[in-house]
Amino acid sequence: MQQILINNERLARQIDFLIEMDKLKGVARRSPLADGSRVENSAEHSWHLALMAMVLAVYAAEPVDAARVVRMLLVHDIVEIDAGDTYAYDPAANVGKAEREQEAAGRLFGLLPDDQAADLRALWDEFEGQDTAEARFANSLDRLMPLLHNYLNDGRVWREHGVTAEQVQRRMAPVAEGSPDLGTIVEAILADSLSRGLLETD
Amino acid sequence: MQQILINNERLARQIDFLIEMDKLKGVARRSPLADGSRVENSAEHSWHLALMAMVLAVYAAEPVDAARVVRMLLVHDIVEIDAGDTYAYDPAANVGKAEREQEAAGRLFGLLPDDQAADLRALWDEFEGQDTAEARFANSLDRLMPLLHNYLNDGRVWREHGVTAEQVQRRMAPVAEGSPDLGTIVEAILADSLSRGLLETD
Repeated sequence: MQQILINNERLARQIDFLIEMDKLKGVARRSPLADGSRVENSAEHSWHLALMAMVLAVYAAEPVDAARVVRMLLVHDIVEIDAGDTYAYDPAANVGKAEREQEAAGRLFGLLPDDQAADLRALWDEFEGQDTAEARFANSLDRLMPLLHNYLNDGRVWREHGVTAEQVQRRMAPVAEGSPDLGTIVEAILADSLSRGLLETD
Repeated sequence: MQQILINNERLARQIDFLIEMDKLKGVARRSPLADGSRVENSAEHSWHLALMAMVLAVYAAEPVDAARVVRMLLVHDIVEIDAGDTYAYDPAANVGKAEREQEAAGRLFGLLPDDQAADLRALWDEFEGQDTAEARFANSLDRLMPLLHNYLNDGRVWREHGVTAEQVQRRMAPVAEGSPDLGTIVEAILADSLSRGLLETD
């Protein structure tokens, strides 16, 4: 907000950060909306996952602090503002992803006052590290939702990108780790997708 | 998920609710993105507000449970899936809004298991009622963000809809009520918008 004077320097940095965050609405993912009308963007995807965490927290493999999972999911993709969304099933695109995202995290969280930058960065690091029950449950939601979207679109995006059942199965393994109950949904979707020919085996 | 069998009836209802929620990504608002490339939708707007609550909670007029504000903002617009987004500055469109939204709330929250429907509905009722510090702070964020977006777009949408400075001032009054610090941003933006001719007086 260079245009106007916000006398409170701390508040000015926070507002600048929040305005920069608007760019996440312009980061396109590969997964389609449930109705197939377009692909979703990373901001609305983050909203959907946070809501999902509110509704499904009780299914986590271990008891989780649901509010922390929600906060983690609200920031889990913001590095994509600089680093872009990397398609999970594209090995070439994933080269250098970690470095790109570390650099992005430094710049983007760094827009905030130092103490708050550290707090939000810690949430992102926790998600990336996958060492806590909260991070594993958040990850299981992040994997499950695109599966639902692809399934509801009869596997169109899988076919467009030549994705096989084995690839999806490997990609979805963390769902059951973070939540055995949600893992049963993955199994049911994979079985139905195979029987209906929405997915092909190697 | 009628296509596949989820044996757990409760989980099946929750997943159906979450899939229905995808439609919020298709509800267009009037406010443009910060870069003016398109208008934002209510799902990505909800993400932005929830993140805003995480970052700015300390500025609430009274101490708030930040996690509750976040949850409230994640569900505050879902009734728009049925009732649509009603433009704040269009009196005709606002006729019958409350009834439409009550009906929408009944159907949409009602997709969830009864106990969880009541919990999430209570968050929406609290936001609508504006009787708690959390609801008032959530409302101040919901008012402030579109002001920032319109300001960053040099007031284009205000001019397109013939919105005056007095209308914006009235609409923004709750910002200072929920957060005096954020109220100072409203004052600065209004003053600058008037001096630059982005807004006209009656």
